[in-house]
Amino acid sequence: MDNKYSDDILGRARVKDNDELKAYYKELEGLGAGALWTVANDIEPWEPRTSSIPMLWKYEDLRELVLRSSELVSPEEAGRRVVYLVNDKRRDVSAAVGWLYTGLQVTRPGESTSAHKHKASALRFIMEGEGGYTVVDGNKVTFEVNDFVITPNSTWHEHGVAKDGKTCIWQDGLDIPLVNALEANDYAVYDGKQPTDVPTNYLPDSFGSAAGLMPAYENWDKPYSPIFKYRWKDVYPALKEAAKFGKASPYDGVLMHYRNPCTGGHVMQTMGASMQMLRPGEHTKAHQHTGSFVYQCAKGNGYSVINGTRFDWKERDIFCVPSWAVHEHVNLSDTEDACLFSFNDLPTIENLGLYQERPHEKDHQDIIA
Amino acid sequence: MDNKYSDDILGRARVKDNDELKAYYKELEGLGAGALWTVANDIEPWEPRTSSIPMLWKYEDLRELVLRSSELVSPEEAGRRVVYLVNDKRRDVSAAVGWLYTGLQVTRPGESTSAHKHKASALRFIMEGEGGYTVVDGNKVTFEVNDFVITPNSTWHEHGVAKDGKTCIWQDGLDIPLVNALEANDYAVYDGKQPTDVPTNYLPDSFGSAAGLMPAYENWDKPYSPIFKYRWKDVYPALKEAAKFGKASPYDGVLMHYRNPCTGGHVMQTMGASMQMLRPGEHTKAHQHTGSFVYQCAKGNGYSVINGTRFDWKERDIFCVPSWAVHEHVNLSDTEDACLFSFNDLPTIENLGLYQERPHEKDHQDIIA
Amino acid sequence: MDNKYSDDILGRARVKDNDELKAYYKELEGLGAGALWTVANDIEPWEPRTSSIPMLWKYEDLRELVLRSSELVSPEEAGRRVVYLVNDKRRDVSAAVGWLYTGLQVTRPGESTSAHKHKASALRFIMEGEGGYTVVDGNKVTFEVNDFVITPNSTWHEHGVAKDGKTCIWQDGLDIPLVNALEANDYAVYDGKQPTDVPTNYLPDSFGSAAGLMPAYENWDKPYSPIFKYRWKDVYPALKEAAKFGKASPYDGVLMHYRNPCTGGHVMQTMGASMQMLRPGEHTKAHQHTGSFVYQCAKGNGYSVINGTRFDWKERDIFCVPSWAVHEHVNLSDTEDACLFSFNDLPTIENLGLYQERPHEKDHQDIIA
Amino acid sequence: MDNKYSDDILGRARVKDNDELKAYYKELEGLGAGALWTVANDIEPWEPRTSSIPMLWKYEDLRELVLRSSELVSPEEAGRRVVYLVNDKRRDVSAAVGWLYTGLQVTRPGESTSAHKHKASALRFIMEGEGGYTVVDGNKVTFEVNDFVITPNSTWHEHGVAKDGKTCIWQDGLDIPLVNALEANDYAVYDGKQPTDVPTNYLPDSFGSAAGLMPAYENWDKPYSPIFKYRWKDVYPALKEAAKFGKASPYDGVLMHYRNPCTGGHVMQTMGASMQMLRPGEHTKAHQHTGSFVYQCAKGNGYSVINGTRFDWKERDIFCVPSWAVHEHVNLSDTEDACLFSFNDLPTIENLGLYQERPHEKDHQDIIA
Repeated sequence: MDNKYSDDILGRARVKDNDELKAYYKELEGLGAGALWTVANDIEPWEPRTSSIPMLWKYEDLRELVLRSSELVSPEEAGRRVVYLVNDKRRDVSAAVGWLYTGLQVTRPGESTSAHKHKASALRFIMEGEGGYTVVDGNKVTFEVNDFVITPNSTWHEHGVAKDGKTCIWQDGLDIPLVNALEANDYAVYDGKQPTDVPTNYLPDSFGSAAGLMPAYENWDKPYSPIFKYRWKDVYPALKEAAKFGKASPYDGVLMHYRNPCTGGHVMQTMGASMQMLRPGEHTKAHQHTGSFVYQCAKGNGYSVINGTRFDWKERDIFCVPSWAVHEHVNLSDTEDACLFSFNDLPTIENLGLYQERPHEKDHQDIIA
Repeated sequence: MDNKYSDDILGRARVKDNDELKAYYKELEGLGAGALWTVANDIEPWEPRTSSIPMLWKYEDLRELVLRSSELVSPEEAGRRVVYLVNDKRRDVSAAVGWLYTGLQVTRPGESTSAHKHKASALRFIMEGEGGYTVVDGNKVTFEVNDFVITPNSTWHEHGVAKDGKTCIWQDGLDIPLVNALEANDYAVYDGKQPTDVPTNYLPDSFGSAAGLMPAYENWDKPYSPIFKYRWKDVYPALKEAAKFGKASPYDGVLMHYRNPCTGGHVMQTMGASMQMLRPGEHTKAHQHTGSFVYQCAKGNGYSVINGTRFDWKERDIFCVPSWAVHEHVNLSDTEDACLFSFNDLPTIENLGLYQERPHEKDHQDIIA
Repeated sequence: MDNKYSDDILGRARVKDNDELKAYYKELEGLGAGALWTVANDIEPWEPRTSSIPMLWKYEDLRELVLRSSELVSPEEAGRRVVYLVNDKRRDVSAAVGWLYTGLQVTRPGESTSAHKHKASALRFIMEGEGGYTVVDGNKVTFEVNDFVITPNSTWHEHGVAKDGKTCIWQDGLDIPLVNALEANDYAVYDGKQPTDVPTNYLPDSFGSAAGLMPAYENWDKPYSPIFKYRWKDVYPALKEAAKFGKASPYDGVLMHYRNPCTGGHVMQTMGASMQMLRPGEHTKAHQHTGSFVYQCAKGNGYSVINGTRFDWKERDIFCVPSWAVHEHVNLSDTEDACLFSFNDLPTIENLGLYQERPHEKDHQDIIA
Repeated sequence: MDNKYSDDILGRARVKDNDELKAYYKELEGLGAGALWTVANDIEPWEPRTSSIPMLWKYEDLRELVLRSSELVSPEEAGRRVVYLVNDKRRDVSAAVGWLYTGLQVTRPGESTSAHKHKASALRFIMEGEGGYTVVDGNKVTFEVNDFVITPNSTWHEHGVAKDGKTCIWQDGLDIPLVNALEANDYAVYDGKQPTDVPTNYLPDSFGSAAGLMPAYENWDKPYSPIFKYRWKDVYPALKEAAKFGKASPYDGVLMHYRNPCTGGHVMQTMGASMQMLRPGEHTKAHQHTGSFVYQCAKGNGYSVINGTRFDWKERDIFCVPSWAVHEHVNLSDTEDACLFSFNDLPTIENLGLYQERPHEKDHQDIIA
C-alpha cells in the first residue's frame, strides 16, 4: 500500500522462483498445501489494508427510489422494503464498507412487518416520517427523526408506522456481512406479532434518564444496552452543552458515543454508534485508524476528505470511511453546527485487540480528487 | 436476637462450665488465647445483628443550631462547621448508623474552606441556600437544593459559597467510621486553594447528559463516577417519568440508584446513594436486608415503620435504617408524591458478598411504638 | 443448506422478477445501491453457513516435504520455512479452515530467525525435535514435543534451535486471515535479535505453577496469558488425573482448555486452544457449534466423523472442523488413550456473542463417505 | 500517632472550649448530635491507625492445651474444639488482629463435626496429623500438613479425620469479626451430614492442575476459587522453582498468592492467603501497608521485626502484623529456606479502594524491644 516499506529486506520473503521450486510447489498443491514464502508478503501487509473504497450516497438521488420500492413490492413479498447501499469493492458481500451493511427502509402509514430475529445485530437511524415504531423482544419503542434505535443480536424485532403517521424512511445498519463471514448467522421467523406487555418506551426511558439514574427494581443482564432508543431531542442539547465547554477531539470535534449505561461500553457487542458535532467553521485534523465507519449527516452541511478525495455532504447524505483511511471533516457553515451520525464495528475491533490509530503527517491532507 | 433459634442444639456450643474448665480457660487467657466454645454462639449469630438503633432527627430542631455554629466558630478554626448526627448506640465511632457518618454543614456567602483529602469517601445532599460549590480534584461543581454531589476517596476537595449567594446548609455523608474501623484512613491538607483549569461543571455535564452519551475524547479510568453532581432538576423529572410506567419496587416504590455511567455500578467504591419516589398514598411492603442507610426527605411528608416503631418525617428530616431492620415507607399525601434521598454502604456489603434480603412475614408491621 | 427451511413463507423475500423491477434494479445499481429483497434470503441464512470443507492432512505425506523446504530455501530468504495447509475452499485467504491459518515450520540446529511482530496472533504446537525455543518480547521459552506455545498479537517473536539440538518441526497457528479480513493486520521487523534480560522460561514457570500460585511481585496487565508455554509433561498427567474422576463432556471427552490464569479466559484475545483426551474405546456424541477448529493428534489414533465423512487420524495428523459442522470423535484403541490438540477462534466467536451449539439429532452420524 | 503531623494548622480543628460552646455542645447532645470539630482530628487521623498490637503465639506453648481441649469437651458439646488466639487489644471482638479471627482446631481419628454455614468465610492451614478432610458443599477434600483449604462464605462445611488417621490440628482463619462488624453474619446448621456425590478431591484436582488447564465441561460461576485445596506438595516445589529465577519482592522475598484461576484474583471475596519463601540468609526490607495479616511459619526459623519489636518464630508459630505496622522478615538459616504462610483481609481492603503501602525510611528498623 505504501512505498516506504520495502519487501527486499531481512524478515520478508525474498525467494526467487526456479524450476526445482516450481516442482516443489506443484507437489505441495497436490496435498492441500503451499509454501508460506510464496504468499507471506501478501498476507502479512506492513499496514492495515482495506478492500473497500470511500463512497458517498446522495439522499436526493436515492429518496425517490426508496419511496418507489413501497409501490413496487409489498412488505409481505419483500420482507422489508429496503434499498441497500453497496461499496463498489464489496458487492460480493453486500457491504457498504468493510463488513457493515446499510440500507434505507421505507414503511407507509398503517404498515407493519412480521417479527424475525438473527445473530446479526441491527440498528436504525431515523431519516423522515412520523409515527414509526419498533418492537424489540416485546418492548415497543416509538421514534422520531434523528433518533437512534437498536435491535441487538437474537432479539425478536418488527417495525411499523401508525395509521395516522407519515411515511417513514430510516437507515438500517447491520453486521450481516461480518456475521456471515464469521459463519455464525442464523434466522428465525416469529409466529405472528409479538405481544407487548411492557408499556411503550419503558426500557429506553427508565434506563436512559438524565442524571445517571438507574431503576433499582430492574436487573439488566443482557450483553447490550437497555436503552433501545437514544432520542435526538436529548442528544442534540447534550452535544450543544458539551460544545460550550470547548473541549473536543482534534480529529472529530465534539464526538460522543452512544453507550450502554450498565457497562459504559458500546451499545452492542459488535457494532457501536456515535453522534458528533462539528462546530461552526470547524475543520478537524486528519488521522487514520482501524475500524469501518458509515456516516449520515444529521444536520448541516460540509465535506470530508478521505484518502485525499473530497466528499461533500448535506443532511441525510451517507458516506463511508474504510479501515485505515486517512480522513478529516469540515463544517462549511461559519454560523451553524453540523452533526454527523455514524455507526461502526469498533466493538469488534477493540474486543479483538485490533484497534490502532495514527495522526496524519500533516494537519490536513492534500486533495487529489 | 430472636427466640425462634435455639442454641441448645447440635451444631451450637453447649459446654457447661466446671472447675476444670475454668482453670483451663485461665491458662489459655495467660497465653493470649481462649476456648472458642465460650464465645462461639455470641460471635456466630443466627441472623445479621446490628448495634445501631433506628433514629430520626428533625430539621426544625437542628436548623437553628447548625446556623448558630457559623457564628460560634470560624471555618479557619473549625475546619468545617458541621453538626454531626450520632446514633445513641454508636457514639464511640461517631456514626449515625452502622459505620456511616452524617452531619449538617453550614457555609455563609463568601466563605470557603481549605482543601483536604482522606481515604474516606464523602458525599453531600444540598438542603438550602444558593451559590454553593465544591471543587473536586480541580473540577469546580456548583450545586442547588436537592442536588447530590460526591467527593470520592483521596480526591482533593473544598467547598464554598459565592459572595452573592445565600447561606448554604447541606448534609455530609462519609464512611469515616468504616475506613477507621478498617484501619485505613488518612488525611492531608492541600497547600492553598486548588487551581481550577477545567471549566465549571465540565465533568458532571459531559458524562451525565441525557440519552446515554459519553464523550469519546475523555478517558475516565477512576474507580468512581465522573458525574460528580446529580442534579435535582434532572432527577425529579426522571422519577416522575418512571412513575408513569407503573413499575416499581414493592418495598421501595420508584427507587432509582445514582450510578457510575462507566460501570453501571454505584457512584463510589464504598458508598452508594439513591432517590426514591413514594407515589401519592403509597404504602410499601415491609422487608429487611443487610446494609446501613441514612435517609433525608427531599420532598413531601410521610412516615416509616422501622422494627415496629413509627417515625414521621417531612422535608429535610433525616432518619436511619440499621442493617437487617425491618422497614416500610408511607407517603401520607394522597395527591403529592414524596421523595426520599438515601445513602448507604451497599457497595461495601455487595463487594464483600454480604448482601441478603428477606420479605417480612406480613405486608406491614405491627406498630409497637 | 437444509431443506427443512422454506423460503416461501411470510418473513422471507418472495418477490418475483418483472420488467419494471428489472429496470428499477438497473437504476439502483447505477447509484451504488440494490434492492435488499434480491439478496436477503442469501445473506440471511436460516443456520450458520461455512465456506470451508472438512479436510485431513497426513503427516506421513507432509513431513518429507517440510524437511525438504529447509534445503530449498534459507531462513534469510524465506523469513520462515513453512509449508502451510490450505482448505480447498479457502485458497483465496490462505486459510486451513474459516479464518485460521496453519502451517508446519522447520528449523535446523543452530538456525534462528529474525524477530518480527504483527497484529495477528500466533501459537505453536511442537511436533518433533529438540532444543527449540521462542523469544517473546524478550522472554526466552524453550520447548519440547507436544508443548503449546503462544506469541500473542503485537509481541516481538523469533524462533530457533540450539546448535546441539535436533531439527524441529512445529505447527504454527495464526489468525492472519481473520485479521486481514478485519483490515487490521500490520507487520514490523525487529532490528537485530531481541535482548533477553529475563531468565529463560521465567514467565511460564512463575505463572504456570501447579497449585494456583501467582507471584505477588509481578503485575501482569497484558490482555493475554503470561504462561507463554504449556508443557506436555504437565498437561498429560493433568488429563490423566482428570480422566480418573470419570467426568467429561459427552461430545469431547476429557476436554481441557489452556487458560489465562489472570482471567480464567482464553490464552489470547482471538484464538484459544485445548487438549482433549479420548479415553480407551471412547466414542463421543455428535454435535455442532459455531467456531472453526484445527486439530492435531498428539497421541494415539482414531477417527472423527465430520458432516458424515470419516477421517482417520494418528499421531501428528492434522484435520479441521468448520463452523457448524456436525462432528464426533472416536478413539480406536481399547487400551490406550488418544489425545487431540486443537486451536480455534472461540474467543472471537464468544466475545462477539456468536457462539451457539446443538446436539445432533442422533448420538452418532450416519457415515456417508 | 506521629509527631511529624501537627494539628495546629489550617485544615485541622483548632477550636478552644469556652462556656458558650460548652452550652452549645450540651444542647446538641440532647438532640442526638455533636459538633464535628470536637471529634474531627480524632476521627480523621493523618495516617492509618490500628487498634491491634503485634503478637506472637508459640506453638510449643499452645499445642498441649489444644490437645487437652479434645479431652475436656466433645465435638457435640463444643461444636468445634478450638483454641482461638486473641489480640490483647481486640478481646472485645475475639480477633487475632484487625477483624481477623484465628484458632487452632483439633480433631481426633474417627471424629467428625456436623455441617454448618455462615456468611463469614473460613480457611484452614494444616499443622499436623493424617487423614483429615473437609466437605464443602458436597465436595470432599482430603488434606495433609501445610495444605491450604478454603470454605467460602455461605458454603456448607464440615470436617473430620478418618478412623485410621492421626489426630489433626489445623489453624482456622475466619473473618467473623469483620462480618459481625459489618452486621451481616448469619448461621445455619445442616440437618445431618452432607451427601458427597462428587468424587473426593474432584474440584481441587480438576481446576488446580499444573500448566494452566481448565475443564471445558465445568462452568464455575461462584465468586470464589474452585480450587478448594492448595497442596503443599505442589506449592513448595513451585516456590523453589520461582526462587531459582532470582526474582522476588524486596519486602517479602518469593511471595506467591494463592489465587482463583477463574479470575486471577484472591481465593475468596474477603480474605486472601499467600505462601512466601525467605531464601537462605534473606533479610527483607522494611515497609508498611494497610491490611491485617496472620502468619504461620510453615518451614524453617527466623524472626520478624514489627514496629521495632523482634519476634522470633519457628515452624508452627503464629504471629500477626497489624495494618500499617512497619515490618521486615529474616531467615536465620544460611543454608535452608524458610516459608511463611499468611492470610489477610487484602480482598476487602483492595475492593474498597483502601490499599496503600510505603517503604520504611531505612532498609531495616531499629530494634527497640
